[in-house]
Amino acid sequence: MKRYETLSVFPEFFEPYMSSSIMGRARSKGLFEFHAHNLRDWTHDRHNTVDDAPFGGGQGMLMKPAPIFEAVESIQTMADAPAHVVFFSPVGETFTQRTAERLAGEDRILFVCGRYEGMDERVYTLADEVISIGDYVLTGGELPALCAIDALVRLIPGALGDEMSAVDESFSSGLLEYEQYTRPADFRGMKVPDVLLSGDHAAVDAWRLASALERTRRFRPDLYEAYMEGGADGETGAS
Amino acid sequence: MKRYETLSVFPEFFEPYMSSSIMGRARSKGLFEFHAHNLRDWTHDRHNTVDDAPFGGGQGMLMKPAPIFEAVESIQTMADAPAHVVFFSPVGETFTQRTAERLAGEDRILFVCGRYEGMDERVYTLADEVISIGDYVLTGGELPALCAIDALVRLIPGALGDEMSAVDESFSSGLLEYEQYTRPADFRGMKVPDVLLSGDHAAVDAWRLASALERTRRFRPDLYEAYMEGGADGETGAS
Repeated sequence: MKRYETLSVFPEFFEPYMSSSIMGRARSKGLFEFHAHNLRDWTHDRHNTVDDAPFGGGQGMLMKPAPIFEAVESIQTMADAPAHVVFFSPVGETFTQRTAERLAGEDRILFVCGRYEGMDERVYTLADEVISIGDYVLTGGELPALCAIDALVRLIPGALGDEMSAVDESFSSGLLEYEQYTRPADFRGMKVPDVLLSGDHAAVDAWRLASALERTRRFRPDLYEAYMEGGADGETGAS
Repeated sequence: MKRYETLSVFPEFFEPYMSSSIMGRARSKGLFEFHAHNLRDWTHDRHNTVDDAPFGGGQGMLMKPAPIFEAVESIQTMADAPAHVVFFSPVGETFTQRTAERLAGEDRILFVCGRYEGMDERVYTLADEVISIGDYVLTGGELPALCAIDALVRLIPGALGDEMSAVDESFSSGLLEYEQYTRPADFRGMKVPDVLLSGDHAAVDAWRLASALERTRRFRPDLYEAYMEGGADGETGAS
């Protein structure tokens, strides 16, 4: 069973998402364990201080090294398998579906979620790897950790239900997904393409491939080029 | 006052994040309003059905057009300002700090969060714009919406507290942030660079610029190149 853990000053944020929908069902089925650790459990003053002012002056507070070191070392002893320790930072490798597929090979991952304006640089010596989920500034690592865990859990065999695993494989083709339609066939004058109503499976498949190619070429020329060069590499679009 | 709204089948997920930390404080200060709408409120059957099977066959379910159309139209009447409607999809523009800065100009934004395997293509006619937060596959649009709202709220003047606004400006320089350190000066033999303890502000500033340049060059050559070409454009690293 996979074991995913977070370390943050905001542990109560994770449970609603990790208990619902696909995450909740996969967890109930015993496909993975999830634990949200509270960094303040590894502080020793009565205010449970995790931050301090930066050396050299400046605004904002930084996360102190000691609680993070103690926490990571302590969490490592909580299970037999060593945790692969992931930090989030703008200097990290950009997280893509390929990163998720690689991390899916780890049995146990601890995601360390910084908050405030940053962390003391020395804490990164604890990291097995550092990732960034995109070129935008967030308040902390909690949302990046949830994104990574969501992407990882979806890759656990059985997490999406047997009937959906094949769908997910098509995501890994390197193309954006084709256009999709459900009932009604005519919604306010907007009609579903005839071929999808035809019952001709070969024609439907051909239309879907053409749709995927056209959308990828139009919206993601970078992925299209990689695909046409035979470099389909598991990159795919986000939800 | 800014007004940010979400439409999803999982409205209860947002509140813990939107009530805590920087989001919660900015909201209490009246800097923005947040409303999480439940898509099932715009269904008319006793099972509150929001999805249906895809035309042309295939696995998984798609979100039906009618509830989403009705919901968006109804939500538009709930405030005087029209909402800028944002959908999340792999075909969308990749969300960056530049996107956040542009969207920060909108007074009211409705984020439509799809779930399941996708949405009927016709719903995208409701979108003022479609964005993607990264090249990875998530279960739904809830996490992308929270990432976008977090990035947006941080840009509201006063949201970070007056003392931190300048720090955020430095994020927009086009460089990754410099290395940061807090006490103790010696942690388990790992020492803070002497210059940061020197009290020489000019030397500290010079060290920080050099650190930012070196980290950007090493970890994000794409940003470094844009910066050196004078193209500092607000791109920046993620948390």
